[in-house]
Amino acid sequence: VRVALDLMGGDAAPGVVVDGALLVASERPDITVVLVGPPDVAAECLGARGAGDRFEVVAASEVVAMDEDPARAVRAKRDATVRVAARLVRDGEADATVSAGSTGAAMAAAVFTLGRLQGMTRPAVAVLVPAAAHPVVLLDAGANVDCEPALLAQFALAGAAYASTLGMASPRVGLLSNGAEAGKGDELRKRAYELLAELPIDFVGNVEGGDVPLGGRADVVVTDGFTGNVLLKALEGMLRLTGAELTSGGPSGGAVLLGVKGVSVVAHGSSSASEVASAVVLAAQAASEGLVPRVSAALDELVARRRSQAGLEALT
Amino acid sequence: VRVALDLMGGDAAPGVVVDGALLVASERPDITVVLVGPPDVAAECLGARGAGDRFEVVAASEVVAMDEDPARAVRAKRDATVRVAARLVRDGEADATVSAGSTGAAMAAAVFTLGRLQGMTRPAVAVLVPAAAHPVVLLDAGANVDCEPALLAQFALAGAAYASTLGMASPRVGLLSNGAEAGKGDELRKRAYELLAELPIDFVGNVEGGDVPLGGRADVVVTDGFTGNVLLKALEGMLRLTGAELTSGGPSGGAVLLGVKGVSVVAHGSSSASEVASAVVLAAQAASEGLVPRVSAALDELVARRRSQAGLEALT
Repeated sequence: VRVALDLMGGDAAPGVVVDGALLVASERPDITVVLVGPPDVAAECLGARGAGDRFEVVAASEVVAMDEDPARAVRAKRDATVRVAARLVRDGEADATVSAGSTGAAMAAAVFTLGRLQGMTRPAVAVLVPAAAHPVVLLDAGANVDCEPALLAQFALAGAAYASTLGMASPRVGLLSNGAEAGKGDELRKRAYELLAELPIDFVGNVEGGDVPLGGRADVVVTDGFTGNVLLKALEGMLRLTGAELTSGGPSGGAVLLGVKGVSVVAHGSSSASEVASAVVLAAQAASEGLVPRVSAALDELVARRRSQAGLEALT
Repeated sequence: VRVALDLMGGDAAPGVVVDGALLVASERPDITVVLVGPPDVAAECLGARGAGDRFEVVAASEVVAMDEDPARAVRAKRDATVRVAARLVRDGEADATVSAGSTGAAMAAAVFTLGRLQGMTRPAVAVLVPAAAHPVVLLDAGANVDCEPALLAQFALAGAAYASTLGMASPRVGLLSNGAEAGKGDELRKRAYELLAELPIDFVGNVEGGDVPLGGRADVVVTDGFTGNVLLKALEGMLRLTGAELTSGGPSGGAVLLGVKGVSVVAHGSSSASEVASAVVLAAQAASEGLVPRVSAALDELVARRRSQAGLEALT
């Protein structure tokens, strides 16, 4: 598996990125890391670690900064690291991309260069929250702040497909709400509930905020990007407050973009070398487990249903 | 200060309620607790603790259960403990009510019996989250799942007035969003931001989910009841996951109803005796610090502004 890694993404890039790549090289020889960035920066950084020709480097001269408007910057910078990395996936020269830079930039590059899967109106960001019982897939984690009910249905299908690549054969999908009872929720949740109940997934109904860190009730938790972002940052804040350590890192470690025609993983901007390495391993696993065809197949069913309904309605 | 305490509210009522009342009696002789519930239940419970005539008991024969529709049940049960307690406040026989039963029932009783303050479309539930730097007032904590921007502005004024009764002279008010920068947020937040920026409060702009447990950026955090509920339950879940103990109890200890013509505090259904006692002390403090006139004055200014704007618009 070949993973294109953004050399310039992350608060401590490029050093922490190269260190992460070296960890992958030593622990997972089955994964080939391709560094994407300015060749002189890569050469200096690798040389300083005595790893001069350890990795293939693909040249990319521009960087999208964290404070830039992601869509505009990605469109303007043809040679941005995230765009070049996405091109490698599009052209079959890599199986996945990883960046610890701006999530918005990685999303924009994926949408522009790889394109959206049919049936997915707007791609989502899915994070794996290391909960008590077992990890929980939470989406959307922040990409889509205003959501329609139909978009939450797409997230549910894509999230379940992602969970299936993580070894959850028949993942239980819950809708994040302000109470577990059916009928709880704001207008968005009430309408989304009806849609999720009709999908070919194991829908367990409404789940609550506590079910994300505690796990156990649902394997996949679906919400809008506004609520998902607030929830994740609250969990991170509480972790920092109590000084507790979770075995598998913070709640928003490796985020996977769902609904695009390629595997793209975004690591936290403050990632350590081992967190960068984890994101590379996550991306490699998603690619080898067929994430994109699985999400695509799940959405196809939705597209087919809509077509069949439209056809039936046209007949009556 | 006289506090009317719902004898039948809470998972472990009436025992835990009487134990809470006894704690208050021994630690805060300046607070007079009036128990509201069936006299025979009170007599038996007090007798078993050798405190037969320690408290005044006001008879109330009905109870609103946690699984009932709160508004309907409160309307139907004229002699419900929460309604009788609210009547005591309305008639000047108590300064505040406390219940560890259904928040919805306490809210319905307060709205029906005490009435809403002018300028408050829908009352809010404010909780005091024990954050790292200092406690944070979070509202709405779950009463209003669908909110208009104007309602969030009312919450901001009421929350700032509440914070002022807690010794925060000029509380900083933040709008919970998915990023600290101005311009972040969904449609509701973007429109609410404009309204909050025009209020006579110290508006610090957008704050993030982590700013609630960590504190420091805002003393009052304003959000809709859906997001507030998800956030609080996530924090509770994370606390349970890590087994960490906060010095001043969990995040949703004593919740204060804001925007009604009386002081009404709701304790968590799973409250211990000392948590019931804390809620009684919180209610007594809110009453003696003039919570209702403060919230009323804050809202009056909003009402006056609206009238003056309407007058100006009528002239042009």
